[in-house]
Amino acid sequence: MADQPWFDSCAHVEGVLLDISGVLYDSGEGGGTPITGSIEAVQRLKASDLKVRFCTNETQCTTKQIVEKLTKLGFDLQLNELFSPAPAACQVLREKSLKPFLVVHPDALPDFAEFDLSEPHNCVVLGDAVSGFSYENMNKAFRVLINQDNPLLISMGRGRYYKETDGLVLDVGPFKAALEYAVDCEAVVVGKPAQGFFMSALKDMGVKPENAIMVGDDIVNDVGGAQACGIRGLQVRTGKFRPSDEHHPSVKPDGFVDNLAQAVDLLLKNRHK
Amino acid sequence: MADQPWFDSCAHVEGVLLDISGVLYDSGEGGGTPITGSIEAVQRLKASDLKVRFCTNETQCTTKQIVEKLTKLGFDLQLNELFSPAPAACQVLREKSLKPFLVVHPDALPDFAEFDLSEPHNCVVLGDAVSGFSYENMNKAFRVLINQDNPLLISMGRGRYYKETDGLVLDVGPFKAALEYAVDCEAVVVGKPAQGFFMSALKDMGVKPENAIMVGDDIVNDVGGAQACGIRGLQVRTGKFRPSDEHHPSVKPDGFVDNLAQAVDLLLKNRHK
Repeated sequence: MADQPWFDSCAHVEGVLLDISGVLYDSGEGGGTPITGSIEAVQRLKASDLKVRFCTNETQCTTKQIVEKLTKLGFDLQLNELFSPAPAACQVLREKSLKPFLVVHPDALPDFAEFDLSEPHNCVVLGDAVSGFSYENMNKAFRVLINQDNPLLISMGRGRYYKETDGLVLDVGPFKAALEYAVDCEAVVVGKPAQGFFMSALKDMGVKPENAIMVGDDIVNDVGGAQACGIRGLQVRTGKFRPSDEHHPSVKPDGFVDNLAQAVDLLLKNRHK
Repeated sequence: MADQPWFDSCAHVEGVLLDISGVLYDSGEGGGTPITGSIEAVQRLKASDLKVRFCTNETQCTTKQIVEKLTKLGFDLQLNELFSPAPAACQVLREKSLKPFLVVHPDALPDFAEFDLSEPHNCVVLGDAVSGFSYENMNKAFRVLINQDNPLLISMGRGRYYKETDGLVLDVGPFKAALEYAVDCEAVVVGKPAQGFFMSALKDMGVKPENAIMVGDDIVNDVGGAQACGIRGLQVRTGKFRPSDEHHPSVKPDGFVDNLAQAVDLLLKNRHK
């Protein structure tokens, strides 16, 4: 069965998890650009009897703004269909009554409005801070962590890089790695590839892992992360996909597709045959 | 013999390697501050029959400026007694005729004057760039590396952090770790703890590892690095020393001393007894 194409065994798929950046659109200047065929692909999925949720690690803005941005680009998605790392980070902060030092994008700050952000801080939250990953901010984060007996670094994702319209750019993962090395600690990752993150989206759909499929451009965090939960993982050849992903040393996707449109074509055509 | 103090077995010491930052002085505003007793300790060492070399990973200025800065603070050292990572990095660049993208402190640029720094770059050199570790520069470095089949990242040291007069600050190591994670590569480290670095200082003195002792504040890169070469490693309780270093999980120094002055006292008093 190893060489059977993924779409020959998707009869029982009930729910689809979609990554956003690199699958629906490429981010960049002016809000980014939809990937060809993706707007219609989402429409066709939603018009089918399949359940759909959007699983993103995007933290450059509030979850509300993600929905607004994608709606403006022409996508059909609602706030309650979106799973992103900020609410998961907030839950950890709330449970432990923490005072975080935030290394996040200024536009993402409203998601953390409920917390006391004054000094002394007792933990660090990293998001996709872009130019906020300055030496000054990294140093502040380091000093918060090195002064704790049990340093708590919460990282919203662990991606290496993603694709902007003008090329690849560093994601939060490298800066998480920098602070882990500096302090000799291991970050708590919220968002993909944390199992709890995928499982909360499945729970919301009422779908079991074996009846779900994840479509993403990040072979490690989307595809490998889903597979670790027992969810099929489909790799698109858009976004940050690179030809070397076809021979990845540790992750073997259940299938490769050129883009989301092709994934949805094959899924809808083959699942009831 | 395990509990014998280090100074009871230093009869054969012929050469001493001294770290600079955190042992001779604490860096910071206005050129930094000598550590109490260190100026005299260096004088006493040099007045003895011991050979002395200075092994630093400092890359915030040229090697010439390091000597000038320390001379101004009152230390007796000459350019030919100083071993620092920049000449080692230059040697790699020269041998392979490379066009580096430099993430280094502006004051360190003259050490790289012989190289073509125009695009396209084909490797990255990391030094202690301080505010030069901006998101923009890290992204440029990432793009150079991700576009190479065999990405070459040369890191001048791998230290986690060091002590400025106003507190601990991030060293080059965390930013090396960030790029290694982003590109999935392993950096070539020049400077401490590279074995070649320690050995070139020993060769210059004409001293064998078993007849040498290294004094440093960085338990991993100074003490552990020297020990890996068969050189005794002495940990000072100045600079970036932290109480947890007394029970370090992987490095057991040959001895601990409160500061360089105490190290020199014990060394000179005990080596011929």
